[in-house]
Amino acid sequence: MATQNIKVYRDLMGENEKWAAATRTVLAERRLAMINLIGSPGSGKTTLIESTARQLGARFRAAVLEGDVETTRDAERIAALHIPVSQLLTGGACHLEAKLVHEALLDLPSENLDLVIVENVGNMVCPAEFDIGEHAKIAVLSVTEGEDKPLKYPLLFREARAVVLTKTDLLPHLRFDLAACEGFIHQVNAGIPVFKVSAQSDEGLAAWTDWLLALRG
Amino acid sequence: MATQNIKVYRDLMGENEKWAAATRTVLAERRLAMINLIGSPGSGKTTLIESTARQLGARFRAAVLEGDVETTRDAERIAALHIPVSQLLTGGACHLEAKLVHEALLDLPSENLDLVIVENVGNMVCPAEFDIGEHAKIAVLSVTEGEDKPLKYPLLFREARAVVLTKTDLLPHLRFDLAACEGFIHQVNAGIPVFKVSAQSDEGLAAWTDWLLALRG
Repeated sequence: MATQNIKVYRDLMGENEKWAAATRTVLAERRLAMINLIGSPGSGKTTLIESTARQLGARFRAAVLEGDVETTRDAERIAALHIPVSQLLTGGACHLEAKLVHEALLDLPSENLDLVIVENVGNMVCPAEFDIGEHAKIAVLSVTEGEDKPLKYPLLFREARAVVLTKTDLLPHLRFDLAACEGFIHQVNAGIPVFKVSAQSDEGLAAWTDWLLALRG
Repeated sequence: MATQNIKVYRDLMGENEKWAAATRTVLAERRLAMINLIGSPGSGKTTLIESTARQLGARFRAAVLEGDVETTRDAERIAALHIPVSQLLTGGACHLEAKLVHEALLDLPSENLDLVIVENVGNMVCPAEFDIGEHAKIAVLSVTEGEDKPLKYPLLFREARAVVLTKTDLLPHLRFDLAACEGFIHQVNAGIPVFKVSAQSDEGLAAWTDWLLALRG
């Protein structure tokens, strides 16, 4: 029975890979960059999207695919920015799969778009295991979560191409060792850029969006 | 092929239920209460265990089963309190399954113990789906995560028998609507107790531990 279980898992991953590859083709054809934001519930992913879209402005036109287990709350927040947004509901599943992302991508306007920001389901474990055809997974970690998370959830930090440390305005009120956290991140993924941002003060947003602008190449 | 996938999933759940039932038998025989703490990475689960163990003292003797994807950091923190603790490593899986918990439970000292606190893998989605034989799932949510989480991750808040809102000492520095959050919790699970605690000030810990003392009955 153990063998049978393994076989089914492989079939599912194969299916996912097929859709991820199809997404990569569409992104290349449309000259679109796509990032996949992964972090805990409440790590500040939606707020980061809001700040990023404002900072990018007309230089790099973004659309957003909002992944959630339930509710359209995040899509409603993004819609208020007047940029294209769709809500992807997993109906209980703990991560986005490539097929759902691909279908939503095809429905986005094909003109006047440079970047697709996917917000995955709030979860540091499962979303890191699934390729959705993105150019870069981005680990989003808030400073309120503690500095040891890169060691405890290493797959995400290994798979990510950048880390965004959010809510840095709260640092004066926390016992959070920033240098230790960066050390842990680089222990898992040497040389990965770490952007320290605050949506309250806009600290660090320019460096982060400059990195995004370079992503499409 | 879809039918085959569903069948395998059911087999796994059946296996999990068997181990959960075996755990319930052991808990009844040893007159032990068992709680299952579920929340995001960094929501304050380990710190809550530290505060709870200190607050309970000799009145209600606790042991801890620490679930993590990797590292023994949390078990080391708990060991410093000189209470029995084991680390359960899932090796990549996003939740604890009943079999691993059962094996660790059997290895705990069978005397001088009243309560087993299980800390699940940091994740608001998957752990809520798995019965590990506990008396109560406890949702742990920090006020830094935002008030809408009960609506976005309703299964956890529906399955939980109590909610612990942590890090309340940070409220003056946050835009967090406490009344709205409690409203959302009760929208999902009417009447569930919500304990507002701070490990910095010990606020709310007495009410929470009183609730735990009543759990064994």
